[in-house]
Amino acid sequence: MAAQTSEDALRRALADRQAAVGAQAEAVRALKAAGAGASKADVDAAVEALKALKVEAGAAARRLQAAVGSGGGGGAAREEMRQAVVNTLERKLFYIPSFKIYRGVAGLYDYGPPGCAVKANVLAFWRQHFILEENMLEVDCPCVTPEIVLKASGHVEKFTDLMVKDEKTGTCYRADHLLKDYCKEKLDKDLTLSPEKATEFKYVLAVLDDLSVEELGAKLKEYGIVAPDTKNPLSDPYPFNLMFQTSIGPTGLNIGYMRPETAQGIFVNFKDLYYYNGQKLPFAAAQIGQAFRNEISPRQGLLRVREFTLAEIEHFVDPEDKSHPKFGDVADLEFLMFPRELQLSGESAKLVKLGEAVSKGTVNNETLGYFIGRVYLFLTRLGIDKDRLRFRQHLPNEMAHYAADCWDAEIECSYGWIECVGIADRSAYDLRAHSEKSGVPLVAHEKFSKPREVEKLVIVPSKKDLGLAFKGNQKMVVEALEAMSEKEAMDMKAALESKGETNFQVCTLGKDVVITKKMVSISMEKKLEHQRVFTPSVIEPSFGIGRIIYCLFEHSFYTRPSKSEEEQLNVFRFPPIVAPIKCTVFPLVKNQEFDDAAKVIAKELTTSGVSHIIDTTAISIGRRYARTDEIGVPFAVTVDSATSVTIRERDSKEQIRVDISEIASVVRQLTEGQSTWADVSAKYPSHVGPQGDQE
Amino acid sequence: MAAQTSEDALRRALADRQAAVGAQAEAVRALKAAGAGASKADVDAAVEALKALKVEAGAAARRLQAAVGSGGGGGAAREEMRQAVVNTLERKLFYIPSFKIYRGVAGLYDYGPPGCAVKANVLAFWRQHFILEENMLEVDCPCVTPEIVLKASGHVEKFTDLMVKDEKTGTCYRADHLLKDYCKEKLDKDLTLSPEKATEFKYVLAVLDDLSVEELGAKLKEYGIVAPDTKNPLSDPYPFNLMFQTSIGPTGLNIGYMRPETAQGIFVNFKDLYYYNGQKLPFAAAQIGQAFRNEISPRQGLLRVREFTLAEIEHFVDPEDKSHPKFGDVADLEFLMFPRELQLSGESAKLVKLGEAVSKGTVNNETLGYFIGRVYLFLTRLGIDKDRLRFRQHLPNEMAHYAADCWDAEIECSYGWIECVGIADRSAYDLRAHSEKSGVPLVAHEKFSKPREVEKLVIVPSKKDLGLAFKGNQKMVVEALEAMSEKEAMDMKAALESKGETNFQVCTLGKDVVITKKMVSISMEKKLEHQRVFTPSVIEPSFGIGRIIYCLFEHSFYTRPSKSEEEQLNVFRFPPIVAPIKCTVFPLVKNQEFDDAAKVIAKELTTSGVSHIIDTTAISIGRRYARTDEIGVPFAVTVDSATSVTIRERDSKEQIRVDISEIASVVRQLTEGQSTWADVSAKYPSHVGPQGDQE
Repeated sequence: MAAQTSEDALRRALADRQAAVGAQAEAVRALKAAGAGASKADVDAAVEALKALKVEAGAAARRLQAAVGSGGGGGAAREEMRQAVVNTLERKLFYIPSFKIYRGVAGLYDYGPPGCAVKANVLAFWRQHFILEENMLEVDCPCVTPEIVLKASGHVEKFTDLMVKDEKTGTCYRADHLLKDYCKEKLDKDLTLSPEKATEFKYVLAVLDDLSVEELGAKLKEYGIVAPDTKNPLSDPYPFNLMFQTSIGPTGLNIGYMRPETAQGIFVNFKDLYYYNGQKLPFAAAQIGQAFRNEISPRQGLLRVREFTLAEIEHFVDPEDKSHPKFGDVADLEFLMFPRELQLSGESAKLVKLGEAVSKGTVNNETLGYFIGRVYLFLTRLGIDKDRLRFRQHLPNEMAHYAADCWDAEIECSYGWIECVGIADRSAYDLRAHSEKSGVPLVAHEKFSKPREVEKLVIVPSKKDLGLAFKGNQKMVVEALEAMSEKEAMDMKAALESKGETNFQVCTLGKDVVITKKMVSISMEKKLEHQRVFTPSVIEPSFGIGRIIYCLFEHSFYTRPSKSEEEQLNVFRFPPIVAPIKCTVFPLVKNQEFDDAAKVIAKELTTSGVSHIIDTTAISIGRRYARTDEIGVPFAVTVDSATSVTIRERDSKEQIRVDISEIASVVRQLTEGQSTWADVSAKYPSHVGPQGDQE
Repeated sequence: MAAQTSEDALRRALADRQAAVGAQAEAVRALKAAGAGASKADVDAAVEALKALKVEAGAAARRLQAAVGSGGGGGAAREEMRQAVVNTLERKLFYIPSFKIYRGVAGLYDYGPPGCAVKANVLAFWRQHFILEENMLEVDCPCVTPEIVLKASGHVEKFTDLMVKDEKTGTCYRADHLLKDYCKEKLDKDLTLSPEKATEFKYVLAVLDDLSVEELGAKLKEYGIVAPDTKNPLSDPYPFNLMFQTSIGPTGLNIGYMRPETAQGIFVNFKDLYYYNGQKLPFAAAQIGQAFRNEISPRQGLLRVREFTLAEIEHFVDPEDKSHPKFGDVADLEFLMFPRELQLSGESAKLVKLGEAVSKGTVNNETLGYFIGRVYLFLTRLGIDKDRLRFRQHLPNEMAHYAADCWDAEIECSYGWIECVGIADRSAYDLRAHSEKSGVPLVAHEKFSKPREVEKLVIVPSKKDLGLAFKGNQKMVVEALEAMSEKEAMDMKAALESKGETNFQVCTLGKDVVITKKMVSISMEKKLEHQRVFTPSVIEPSFGIGRIIYCLFEHSFYTRPSKSEEEQLNVFRFPPIVAPIKCTVFPLVKNQEFDDAAKVIAKELTTSGVSHIIDTTAISIGRRYARTDEIGVPFAVTVDSATSVTIRERDSKEQIRVDISEIASVVRQLTEGQSTWADVSAKYPSHVGPQGDQE
C-alpha cells in the first residue's frame, strides 16, 4: 500500500513540475515575442526560472524512475546478476539450448554434465524426502496419452492460451503477453503517465489471467497494440491448445497427446493402487516424469519451456477426515506465508507458524498443511534461500471451482516471484471425472465396525397396472416414477392416500398423466448399511523440477575477488547433496608419486560412491580451485605428499590435513551429511600451506 | 546342423509312413470292393496292418511335433511359465496396461510401485556401473526433436516398417509379421509339410529382415496370406514411418518428432562436450531417457512397446587408436559368444574368453571388447542368468554399411532370444552426417608434439590468362583445374613442360579445352602441419531398459510348494540392489509392544536409506512371508520380542537373531553388498523358532 501511494505521489509531483515547466516556457515565449516590449533582464530571469524548473522536473523524473524501476521486478542489477549466472551456467554446460548446431528450438534446453548431475541429485533427494519417508506408491506411466483420458480431465477443452497472429506474416504471439508487455512498458518507462492511467494499467495487469477472449481483444484494440516485430495489425485473439498432438498407431484415426502433467496416469490407476494399498486410506501415489506444453512463444529461459520434468504426488484422503498423524512434526516451522487477505489488502508476505495457519483456518486442513511444511523443508534443504521463498495462497478467482484450497511455493529470482510447487486440495474432482467418462467407479469404502441403520426411499411401480393404463408409454412412466426425489415421492404418497389418484408430469412424454393408488407403492424403509462408499479427495503437491533447479542456481551463485583482486571469480554454494560432483582430486604438481596417490584416492572414492574428477592439468592450484568452485564442487583434495593430503572446503576456503587412508571415508561422511565441515575441522589439523588459493 | 538334419529326417519319416498308411488304406478299400472275391481273413489282416501303420505314423508325428515344438522357441512349458510370471507381475502391479479403465492402448504400459522401484534401482546401478565408474558426461535432452535433426540422422527417410492394410476394414498389419506367422505356423503345426517346403519356410524366416518391399509383397501373394482377423484381401506392402509426429509451436509449419533414440541429442552436442572434456579423446557421453516408436501392431508385452526407456552411451575415440587402458580388467571374463562364423555354420554360441575374442580379431577392437565385458558384468550383477545370456555378432547383412562391428547382448526368455543391449562401432557416420547438414564441423584435433612435414599439391590457376582465353567460362575451368587429383595434376604438369599445352576435359562445360603453360602453375610443396583434424569414431552401447527388466523378471521367478504342500508359492529371487523393497518388518502378533518396536526399527531403516514396509495385517506370519517373497523382498524382520528380532533370508528361508539396535545397520550392509548372508549368519545365532514359514 505504502509503495503504491508513494509511486502515485511521485507521478503527481512529476506531472505538476512538468506543467510548471510548460507554463514557464510559454511565459518565456510570450516575453520574447513581445520584442522590445520586454527588458533583457526580464527575459533572462524568466529563462533562469525555466532552467530551474527543468532541473526540478528532471529530479522528479529520476525519483519516479527509481521507484518504478525497483518495484517492477526489473532493475539493472537484477539483469546484470542474471547475466552473470546464465553466462556461467551456459559456459559450464549446466544447460544449453537444444539442437544448437541447427540454431535451436525456442523453449527446449539440454542439461549438460553438471546440470544433469544436479537434476539427478534433486530427484534422488525428492524420492528420499517424499516417497521413502512417506511410503508413497511410485508409478511410471507413458507420456503418449490417448485423447479420451485428456477429454475426461478437461485438457482437450481447456488447456489453452489465447493467441493472436500477425495478419501479414502469420507469426503467432500470446495475446496476454502483448498486453502485459504494453502495460509494463508504459508503467516502467512512460514518465508522463497520469496517475489515473497508471492505476488502469496496474488493474489490467492484476486481472490479466481473468480476461475473457472478448475483453482481451477489446483491450488490444483500445491500446492499438500491433505485432512487436513488424508493427503489422494483429488478428483477434483465439484459443490455442497447448498440448503436442500426435497419432497413435498407423491408421491416423487414434488421436493422442503428449501428457501435459503426470497426474492423470495416477488417477486412472486409482482402483488398482487402492487395492494394492490394502483398500486403506489415506495413501499417496507419486510420479516423476516428462510433461509437455507447446508454448506459443516461450521466453524466460528454463522457467518457461516446452518440455519439462514434473514430480507429482497425489495424496488420497477421506473428505471427512483430512487430519494428518505427522502434522506435529512440521507444526512449529515458521516461514513466509502470503494468504489471500494479505494479498487483497496490498500487504506483503509475513512470517507465520504453520501450526497457527492451520488452527486458524488460513490453511484449509492438516494434510494440506503437512505437505506445505514438507515442501518448505525440501526446498530449503536443497539450498533455496528461505528469505526468498514464500507460500502464496490462490485468490478465489485463480482457483479451479472445485478446489478446496491451493498454495504455491514461490521462489524469488531475477524474473520475480516464480511458482515452483503447487499444493492444491482438488477435492474429488479428478476421480469423479474419470469415473463418469470410463464408467469404472473410482471410489473407496469405509467398512463400519457395526452396521448403521439408515432410512431409504423405496418406490415400487406396479408394471401390470401401469402397462394396462399406458401401453407403449409404460416405460417412460416407470422411469419417471423411479426418478422422483424424496420430497416428490412423499407428496405423491400423501395425495394417493387422501384422494386415490394424482396428476404426474412425465417430462419424457411432454404431458401429465393420472397415477392411481394401485399403480405405485411408496415407502420409507429402514435399512442396515455395512459400509460407506465415497470418492476420495486428492491433495496434490506438484513440483516443476526445472524451475526449482533454475532458482537454486540463482540462489547458490556468488562472486568473490581473486587473490590478486584482479578479477571476480564465480562460485556456486551448492550443498553437498545437490553438488554435481562431490570432490575434485588435484596432484599439487605433476610427478609420478602424486599422480599415483591421486589414482588410489580416486579408486576409493568410486568404491564409496562419491562422484569426483581428477584434474591433472598443469595450471596453478589456485586456477584449479577456481575452476572447481565455478561448478560448485564442495571439497577439493590436493595431493602434496604420498601419505597425507589436504581437503579444502569451497566457501570458507579452509583446509585440513588428512591421512590418505582416511580420505574416502571423511569425504563420504561430509557429502552424505553424517558430519559437517565444523566436525572434521575440529578433528583434523588445519593446513595453511604454500598452495595459495586463487593466485 | 544336427538339429536341422534330425528334423528333416523326422519329416521324411513321417511322410513315408503317411504314404504307407495311404497305400494300405487303398488296399483295404480294394479288398472290400472286391466283395466276396476276398476272404474275411484277408480283409481283417489288411485292416490290422493299416492300424499298425497308423500307430507308427502317429508316433512319427509326435516325434516331429516334439522336435519342432522344443526347437521353435514355443512350447507349452514356456507358455505356462510365462503365464505364471505375467500373472504375478500384473497382480502385484509390477506393470499394468496403461489407461486400463479406458480399455488401454496397445504397446503402452505403466510400471506400478514394485516395477517402478525395480526400474529406479536398475537405472541407479547403471549410473554407478557406467557413468560414475568411467567418468562419463551425462546429458539430458528433450524428447521433442525438430525434423532437421532426424533428417540428418536418416530417421525421417529410413525409420520405417512395411505395412499392409485390410482392404475392407483398413486395419493395419506389419507385413513381415504376417509372413513370419504364416511360416512359423506351417513349420510348427503342419506335419504334412514336405522337407523341401520346410526348408523354404525356414529360409524365408532367415532372410525376413532383408526382403525388399517388392519381394515381401510377392511372398504374401504367393502364399495367399489374408488379413488374420477378417480373411479379407490385403493391400500391397508400403513403408510406414515409426516416429510419432507432432508440430512444434502454434504455426503448424514446424514439424517435430518424438525422438526414436537418445543418441542424436549427444551427437549434436559433440562440439561442446569435446571442449568440456578439455579437447581430449577418448571420452564418453551418456543419456537415460524416454524414446518412442509408433509400432504398427505391438505385441509381446513389455518387449515391444511404443514408449520405452533407453540408456545410451556414445564413446568417442580416435579411429586410429581403439585400444582401451582398462581392457585388462575384463579380458579374463568367459561367457557365451555367438560370432558370425558359428551362426553361418549353424552351430550354437560357445564359451569364449573375451581377451581371446579380441586378440583373434573376432571382436573388432579393444574398446568394443571392453564394453562387451562391462555389459556382461552389468547384466549378470543385476541377476540375469549367465547361461541364458549370449553376445551375438551381427551378420554382414544386418549391419549398417558404415558400422565396423556390432554385437547384441541377447537374453533368452519365454519369447526366445531377445536383443536387450546393442554394442556397435558406428565409425564416424553420425558426426559426419550432422557436420554436413548443420555446417558445423564436429571434429577432434590431435596436436603433434613437433610439427610434421607433409607434401601438398598446390595448383594456382592464372585468372588473368584464363579470363582472356575463356571469358564467361573462366570460372568453370578454374574450378576443374583446382579439383584435379594429384595424378591428373602431375600428368598435366609433365605435358605442359614437354609440349607447352594440353587438352583438358571440363565436365561442367561438357567439352575439352586447351590449357597452355602460362594458364596454371602446378607444384608439390613441403608444408609443416601442427595437428591432425579428424572425425572421431563412436562406439555405442545402447540399453533397452524395459526389455532387460522383463527378462530379469523371468530369470528371477520361481515357485516352491507351501509348507502344507497344498499350493505353489511364487518367489522373485532379485538380488538386493534390484529388489523393489529391501526389507519388510512384521510384528509376529498384534500387540502394542511389538508394534512400537517395529516402528522404531522402521524409523532407523528410513534414516539408513533402506526402503521397507511394515506389514501389521492380522494374517499368519507364513502368509506374510509368502506375500513378501512374491514381490522379491530379500529380507524380513520379524518382531517377536522388544529387544531382539529375527531376520529371514528369502531364498534359503534361514533366520538369524539380531539385537534391535543393530538391525538397521545389518540390513543396510546386506542390501548394499558390504556383507553377504553367509557373513551375517556366521556372526549371529541362527533362529529355529515357532514362527513357521508358509503354513
